[in-house]
Amino acid sequence: MPYGYRGKILHVDLSSGALTVEEPPESFYRKYMGGQGLGMYYVLKGTSAGVDPLGPENVLALTLSVVTGAPVSGQSRVMANAKSPLTGGIGDAQAGGFWPAQAKFAGFDAFIIKGRAETPVYLWVCDGEAELRDAAHLWGKVTGEAEAAIREELGDPKIEVLQIGPAGEKLVPYACLINMANRANGRTGMGAVMGSKNLKAVAVRGNMRPEIADRKALSSIARWGAKKLPESSIANLSIHGTAGSVLAQNEVGGLPSYNWDSGVFGNPERLDGRTMSDTILKERDTCFGCVVRCKRVVEIQEGPYDVDPLYGGPEYETLGTLGTYCGVFDLAAVSKANELCNMYGLDTITTGAVIAWAMDCFEHGIITMDDTGGVALNYGDGDAVVRMTEMIGNREGFGDLLAEGMAQAAAELGPEAEELVTAVKGNPMPAHMPQVKRSLALIYAVNPYGADHMSSEHDPAYLAFPDRVAQFDLLDPQPVDVLNAEKVRYAMYTQRYYCLLNTIGVCQFVWGAAWQLYGPSQLVDMVRAVTGWRVSLWELMKVGERSLNMMRAFNAREGFTRAEDTLPPKLFKPLSGGPSDGVAVSKEEMGFAVPAYYAMCGWDSEGRPARPKLEELGLGWLAEELSCSSG
Amino acid sequence: MPYGYRGKILHVDLSSGALTVEEPPESFYRKYMGGQGLGMYYVLKGTSAGVDPLGPENVLALTLSVVTGAPVSGQSRVMANAKSPLTGGIGDAQAGGFWPAQAKFAGFDAFIIKGRAETPVYLWVCDGEAELRDAAHLWGKVTGEAEAAIREELGDPKIEVLQIGPAGEKLVPYACLINMANRANGRTGMGAVMGSKNLKAVAVRGNMRPEIADRKALSSIARWGAKKLPESSIANLSIHGTAGSVLAQNEVGGLPSYNWDSGVFGNPERLDGRTMSDTILKERDTCFGCVVRCKRVVEIQEGPYDVDPLYGGPEYETLGTLGTYCGVFDLAAVSKANELCNMYGLDTITTGAVIAWAMDCFEHGIITMDDTGGVALNYGDGDAVVRMTEMIGNREGFGDLLAEGMAQAAAELGPEAEELVTAVKGNPMPAHMPQVKRSLALIYAVNPYGADHMSSEHDPAYLAFPDRVAQFDLLDPQPVDVLNAEKVRYAMYTQRYYCLLNTIGVCQFVWGAAWQLYGPSQLVDMVRAVTGWRVSLWELMKVGERSLNMMRAFNAREGFTRAEDTLPPKLFKPLSGGPSDGVAVSKEEMGFAVPAYYAMCGWDSEGRPARPKLEELGLGWLAEELSCSSG
Repeated sequence: MPYGYRGKILHVDLSSGALTVEEPPESFYRKYMGGQGLGMYYVLKGTSAGVDPLGPENVLALTLSVVTGAPVSGQSRVMANAKSPLTGGIGDAQAGGFWPAQAKFAGFDAFIIKGRAETPVYLWVCDGEAELRDAAHLWGKVTGEAEAAIREELGDPKIEVLQIGPAGEKLVPYACLINMANRANGRTGMGAVMGSKNLKAVAVRGNMRPEIADRKALSSIARWGAKKLPESSIANLSIHGTAGSVLAQNEVGGLPSYNWDSGVFGNPERLDGRTMSDTILKERDTCFGCVVRCKRVVEIQEGPYDVDPLYGGPEYETLGTLGTYCGVFDLAAVSKANELCNMYGLDTITTGAVIAWAMDCFEHGIITMDDTGGVALNYGDGDAVVRMTEMIGNREGFGDLLAEGMAQAAAELGPEAEELVTAVKGNPMPAHMPQVKRSLALIYAVNPYGADHMSSEHDPAYLAFPDRVAQFDLLDPQPVDVLNAEKVRYAMYTQRYYCLLNTIGVCQFVWGAAWQLYGPSQLVDMVRAVTGWRVSLWELMKVGERSLNMMRAFNAREGFTRAEDTLPPKLFKPLSGGPSDGVAVSKEEMGFAVPAYYAMCGWDSEGRPARPKLEELGLGWLAEELSCSSG
Repeated sequence: MPYGYRGKILHVDLSSGALTVEEPPESFYRKYMGGQGLGMYYVLKGTSAGVDPLGPENVLALTLSVVTGAPVSGQSRVMANAKSPLTGGIGDAQAGGFWPAQAKFAGFDAFIIKGRAETPVYLWVCDGEAELRDAAHLWGKVTGEAEAAIREELGDPKIEVLQIGPAGEKLVPYACLINMANRANGRTGMGAVMGSKNLKAVAVRGNMRPEIADRKALSSIARWGAKKLPESSIANLSIHGTAGSVLAQNEVGGLPSYNWDSGVFGNPERLDGRTMSDTILKERDTCFGCVVRCKRVVEIQEGPYDVDPLYGGPEYETLGTLGTYCGVFDLAAVSKANELCNMYGLDTITTGAVIAWAMDCFEHGIITMDDTGGVALNYGDGDAVVRMTEMIGNREGFGDLLAEGMAQAAAELGPEAEELVTAVKGNPMPAHMPQVKRSLALIYAVNPYGADHMSSEHDPAYLAFPDRVAQFDLLDPQPVDVLNAEKVRYAMYTQRYYCLLNTIGVCQFVWGAAWQLYGPSQLVDMVRAVTGWRVSLWELMKVGERSLNMMRAFNAREGFTRAEDTLPPKLFKPLSGGPSDGVAVSKEEMGFAVPAYYAMCGWDSEGRPARPKLEELGLGWLAEELSCSSG
């Protein structure tokens, strides 16, 4: 077939030290493309049911895609997949930065990592060559220091480093991957998986620029984006970052506060991106080739907290979890805790949510100063949040219990503590509230890697951008607070689209379903321009659906059923205060939505992909492996 | 929503004489669009289970679409839907010509016709006004004469007439609709339905040109098509018409001959379009706005058969059914029989196939000269074909039995005759052989209106145009003679696309999935340019899937189950001669393919759309009405 794409995949067996290069046929690339799709292919093929997430048999896929490194906004993304030590199901996390493009320039589309090195190593990849190098001297170092050391010993300041911090080394199940010391593949503990393999980092550098099938067409798309950004629906994101949405979330009662007891917060403006821009913002950073510059870099040199700009600045979700979740309105304290998370390699969402849950337990007397080693875990105490973040990163004292994860710690503390949990499949809910974006109630429940805000389009877009949403065959805009059949379709279709974005490996701000710089038809044009494939949006949606089905199939193989697709008790209790006062998700709507979603997805009544659906998606090999039901 | 489309639908109640204009909201148009989609909406809403296809309660939908009449090739199509008197399930037939565009200029997108006039009438629609007029003086007239009479009495030679001929008046269950005296909504007896309502014709004329949202973009698409035609994959179609494929079909053993006993024919060149071009072709005609000019006009003034150019010329399928099916290689005889079909308003495919079946019965001694009233029905006798066509049109003698339909006549003659039937759901197979295009075995079996060649892409395209087919997520080209899971996907996806084309109301030659002038992404651009809607191919594929599901739901309501989705015995018997000698469809592959297709479609094990699929397609109202199974 006259396709235009060629690429290489590096297989790394850390037990044997073997490095193997695979060059799949182009039809394979067109079918799996990169990211989630490519990663899930190798994770499913390389692991068996019941694999220990922290054992050498687990496979960690670090994936780019067919478009990574192309000169257009929003394409420099790295995706990580492996069995998650946090959820026991599939893990998935995405990040931007310069590492992804640089890894592509180093000559590869993916790094498929299995086994365990006897002693710490790091992988060095440069211009098509790869080697494993000793990392004993880097072990224990925080991310900024390790990155500097690697650059120095390899003698090139332009090397990009994706790595784990001390939290990953210590197997904290929500340890993340960090690149540039401030970009995180945050969720589901991919850092612990990498740590369990004794792999400290993947350092990349190269000049192997990918071929562009139609450079003129791509350049025209890039120029269009640069011109349209100021008038686009993400213009404000460009100016104030994701932090700029704190106030808006609070206004609709959708800013999770006090461990999700409320959707409003007393002083939201103290944490909002506008305040950040006016005070501690040092610069707006970006990812390779992107005009948006949404990334915040903050610096604090005065007051109780020094914050080093090397570690970036807090995103909206971080301001939520380490801020409003914990009742903290001190931007400096949140920025400090954010810095610590990036130094230690901790997911800021999970870390903040776990601390907020502990504060809730503390307030309810479920834990006391005796448990915490003398730290008073009171809502609003920014110092306690900073201190607890450090203790988690070091697995020190009470931090060692919290380092196990919210659901795991709650199981140790008993039913009262479990009532206060705000996680699905063990993965804490990010700072977007299903109470006021009801389709997220469904997505949080059914998303294969637990509660996640980057797995579908949020409800307000249905009303705000009816003409954009309409191209997903959603012609009947629904209010934010209902979960009917139309909303199930909305969640399902946009979930496939976001799985597609995580497979093509592009940023959801730039290429999203509704809040976006570029729309779906431009995504089609971009993939065509880069690869030379005459793709259609229909084909691409199938690529996204395929990725989703592979993740669900992984979970099914691990024994997941409908029982895992449930929400924590808090969501069914009325919120307090503000516009969402008294609002709760109902069990009745979930009782309707989950089975309706399964059936529309072509899955069985336990949410497992049925054989015909897998065969339809060209995943007959997976149906065979799972011996799954015939309908 | 900021959509750009406005349109009107004319409801005609022939019993009361009431004419009512409906102006649906734009979201309705975007969801159902026109053609099959719009027609099925009204047929389903307007009829109940068990409706008599020839009773006043049946609803006949004559539909255009949101793009009809736009200045671009391949958009002037009229679609007809109603319960079929031939199959007992849904009927569906499409035609081109100038009538569709003229009907749009007359101010309407659809004519929804119910009831029965006491005496013959015709509908006259001009510039947004409509009236029912007496047609007693037209009843009994052949199409050319009736058309001339209507034009004369209304005093405008530019009036376009869609009508039934004497066959429709006499309720021949495979009577068709004819416009321009030579374009046919051929299949499934829509002419009988119109005849049963005492409606002779719908005459249209107008100057209400539809608005074009982006005239410049549409003009650019039109110019591109005019320029690319000579180098496109339908260049030969443009030169020699569909008739130009006789030789190619024969070469691969896919030219049904002698009532489907063989896939080759002794003298294919005698019937091929090249011979036609060199001999009896008078001109190449076209449909409104189309540059392709595939339509043949033949004229014969010498020899045993006069053929009037008013009635056009035979298509490939007609050369098959009235020619090779019957062993006839006399182009003049076939052209004469074609002319008679267009005069009487008979479907050429069904008429030829029924005669061929009768010849097979004659050869087997199942019928004799006593039955036929002295006509020797020998293979190869062109005169017998011409004579029998006339007898069917007049319901005269043995023609009256054949006028009941192949399956119906066979049921009267007994099991031996039924063994020779070449129909599915009573609808005879057109001149494309599943033996050498195996996905058609599935499509012939499961298509809601019986065996049809315009309901999916044929197999050779998978190998001939892999890059075009790839955009349907079909990346693994399959040979023509297998029916595996990949082929089931190929049939299913392209079936949805062809349902889309029959809903948008565009020609499959111009806008097809693979053999085409324009590809799917240009279809998206065209619909955008005309309507102003920002549609995607994904959305459009859902439109097609919706239409298909509505047709299947109609059949389910009529009690159709898997038992109706079967093939005639002939297909399982080896062919004789040529490249397809010994080839047969196997029961094993059908036993795999049909249930696999059902499951992939989201239907139950009897092929009925399950509630979740209908709800996914925004057809919850239909699920309610059917009280269909929940999965």
